[in-house]
Amino acid sequence: MQPTPSLPGELDASRVIVTLATELKTVPSLEELASGGFSQVMTDHMILVSYDPVHGWSAPEIKPYGPLSMMPASACFPYAINAFEGMKAYMGPDGIPRLFRPEKNMARFARSAARVALPAFNPTELLKIIRQLVTIDKRWVPAAKGHSLYIRPMIIGTRSSLNLSISDSALLWVMCAPSGPYFRNTRPLSLFAATDAVRAWPGGTGEHKIATNYGPTLTHHQRAQAANHDMNLWLLGDKITEAGIMNFFVVLRRDDGDLDVLTPPLDGTILPGITRESILALAAAHPSRMILPGLSEETRLHPAERELTMPDLETWLADGNVVEVFVVGTAVVVSSIGHIAWGAKEIVLPQYGDALGPVSKALRERILDIQEGEFEWEDWCVPCV
Amino acid sequence: MQPTPSLPGELDASRVIVTLATELKTVPSLEELASGGFSQVMTDHMILVSYDPVHGWSAPEIKPYGPLSMMPASACFPYAINAFEGMKAYMGPDGIPRLFRPEKNMARFARSAARVALPAFNPTELLKIIRQLVTIDKRWVPAAKGHSLYIRPMIIGTRSSLNLSISDSALLWVMCAPSGPYFRNTRPLSLFAATDAVRAWPGGTGEHKIATNYGPTLTHHQRAQAANHDMNLWLLGDKITEAGIMNFFVVLRRDDGDLDVLTPPLDGTILPGITRESILALAAAHPSRMILPGLSEETRLHPAERELTMPDLETWLADGNVVEVFVVGTAVVVSSIGHIAWGAKEIVLPQYGDALGPVSKALRERILDIQEGEFEWEDWCVPCV
Repeated sequence: MQPTPSLPGELDASRVIVTLATELKTVPSLEELASGGFSQVMTDHMILVSYDPVHGWSAPEIKPYGPLSMMPASACFPYAINAFEGMKAYMGPDGIPRLFRPEKNMARFARSAARVALPAFNPTELLKIIRQLVTIDKRWVPAAKGHSLYIRPMIIGTRSSLNLSISDSALLWVMCAPSGPYFRNTRPLSLFAATDAVRAWPGGTGEHKIATNYGPTLTHHQRAQAANHDMNLWLLGDKITEAGIMNFFVVLRRDDGDLDVLTPPLDGTILPGITRESILALAAAHPSRMILPGLSEETRLHPAERELTMPDLETWLADGNVVEVFVVGTAVVVSSIGHIAWGAKEIVLPQYGDALGPVSKALRERILDIQEGEFEWEDWCVPCV
Repeated sequence: MQPTPSLPGELDASRVIVTLATELKTVPSLEELASGGFSQVMTDHMILVSYDPVHGWSAPEIKPYGPLSMMPASACFPYAINAFEGMKAYMGPDGIPRLFRPEKNMARFARSAARVALPAFNPTELLKIIRQLVTIDKRWVPAAKGHSLYIRPMIIGTRSSLNLSISDSALLWVMCAPSGPYFRNTRPLSLFAATDAVRAWPGGTGEHKIATNYGPTLTHHQRAQAANHDMNLWLLGDKITEAGIMNFFVVLRRDDGDLDVLTPPLDGTILPGITRESILALAAAHPSRMILPGLSEETRLHPAERELTMPDLETWLADGNVVEVFVVGTAVVVSSIGHIAWGAKEIVLPQYGDALGPVSKALRERILDIQEGEFEWEDWCVPCV
């Protein structure tokens, strides 16, 4: 009688092997986190799990953050067989860290990995391990408004071969770094709408969180900053797609006095942002299911996904219908746009001093309240205990 | 008096530190190389050199091939801040390995690295170090027709930060693997012309040898193979761009009996292949400057870069003007195309049994003769001594 062949291992949270760091690092102070972006100091621990075609997924490890050993011929280097996620843990008033809609990140992570033909994994199991990691590194979750622990899941193809082919081996890890507010202040951002640079196109990869969408944007970002703008506005012809690495929104006053809250549809060129989706959901809930802070019950919001073009924006501005333009993302949450350079044109948008406009301000406050556990909403927060 | 601050180091071949392997590997036999693609066995040694913003380029090392130590937060993983090259060394009849037009690879490597804002390096110095590596690993260069040592230079951004920003640190390495003929036989290939998948777009990265152009093609390649085709034909609308990871050529009989040798122009969506450029140059040299093997002096070739569309190809086929269609690249050299599936259409191209067509056969033979040192042509070969 033959022994039953063992199935390749699934990613399994019950198999986690924890090795705690013997020396713990100093957690950056809130002042040190105030310089913008994420801290470059990673927390004490990371998740590491590997896949090979014989054994499948290894037993996941939670272990001290440290270097990886990689073969130079690993497929991830020349071929960008890489996918990742960005998500945040927030410290609640009860001292319990909370993840914001993490099952959305896990599902997108699995889709992104599949786009570059990486091995499948069970997203529910991965989330269990991430919750365990956040619990272990809980002292790194900053307890201050607008602060959070940024969490970066990463998967790469490690097949050692110079041929371009599907990677039958992979490495998946999760690392964390505390972060302060993404921008130092809330002044409106200025965008450079490049007409010679395209981030994503039909039949490409723009809707996936894979490495290919990022590296090529660096030189354009550099050029935008050299021209005294904060970042690039990505167009596809005249169509507005994304700003920097964020989703784009415009708020229009309608003839009936209501407000349209518009963002481009998920046509394949747009990253399906989780903040984007949450903003649309919160706007739809006002005022029937909840009142957004600072907005009156009479202000009705009509969130919708529709194609937005630069000429549309010009027309709406000329007609005096634009209330505000803003961008959203996991890192920035919500930020205001004050200005767009588009070819020879300088487009000036409505500004509210150094503050956000009324709709983005209301949405940002509400989403932060939910993220930080001050406002309960539809199980969007998953506690790490 | 202040000491003169030292300038950041340039990449400098005179600073090479050589550490030879103490145990040498077994070189694969020609039979073992006959299975197609590149060997997965790397040679004994590699080049490794690092860049940091304080010291610039380190002293280059030639050292035993082995694993790299990398921080998990290195920018190359999520953001594809990676560029590479593919080039070959051929064993000459005099026992001296030769590189084929390596200065072209070096120049493209520098351009690709700049596209993802990686630190600049001196390509001439890098070539000197590569020649030294090939000399040290000379026993790995196969001495057989159609065989070569494939050389893979690679540069990646290693800045340790979760923020998307320019990498001020980098790692550059060069590794080698012996290779047999890319395809096991010379039967014509079948292409699947996907209408829903686009490799490159104007304003994108198609003309650069950077990681972003490769990972997203894997699922399309998988689909083409599942439908019994060899690889994908990449279209942009109706325009033919590339096939698999190769440049595309069509040979047409003109009214005057001469032959047009056509390939799409370098409009930004096409990789400027060095085999492509060499094929155009050799076709232009026949018959005035040299006679291609097997072609008569009366056969005049007119190489040209021009836009090629699928409807063009259909018209030319209906008119009986297509002599042959072929693809070229460093790995494959020259290969014949026999069939293209395009939507519901099955396009059957002229075939010459299991052999190449007359023009591609002549060009392949001449280019191999030049690469292998059997035919001297315009300093295209650089000996490694």
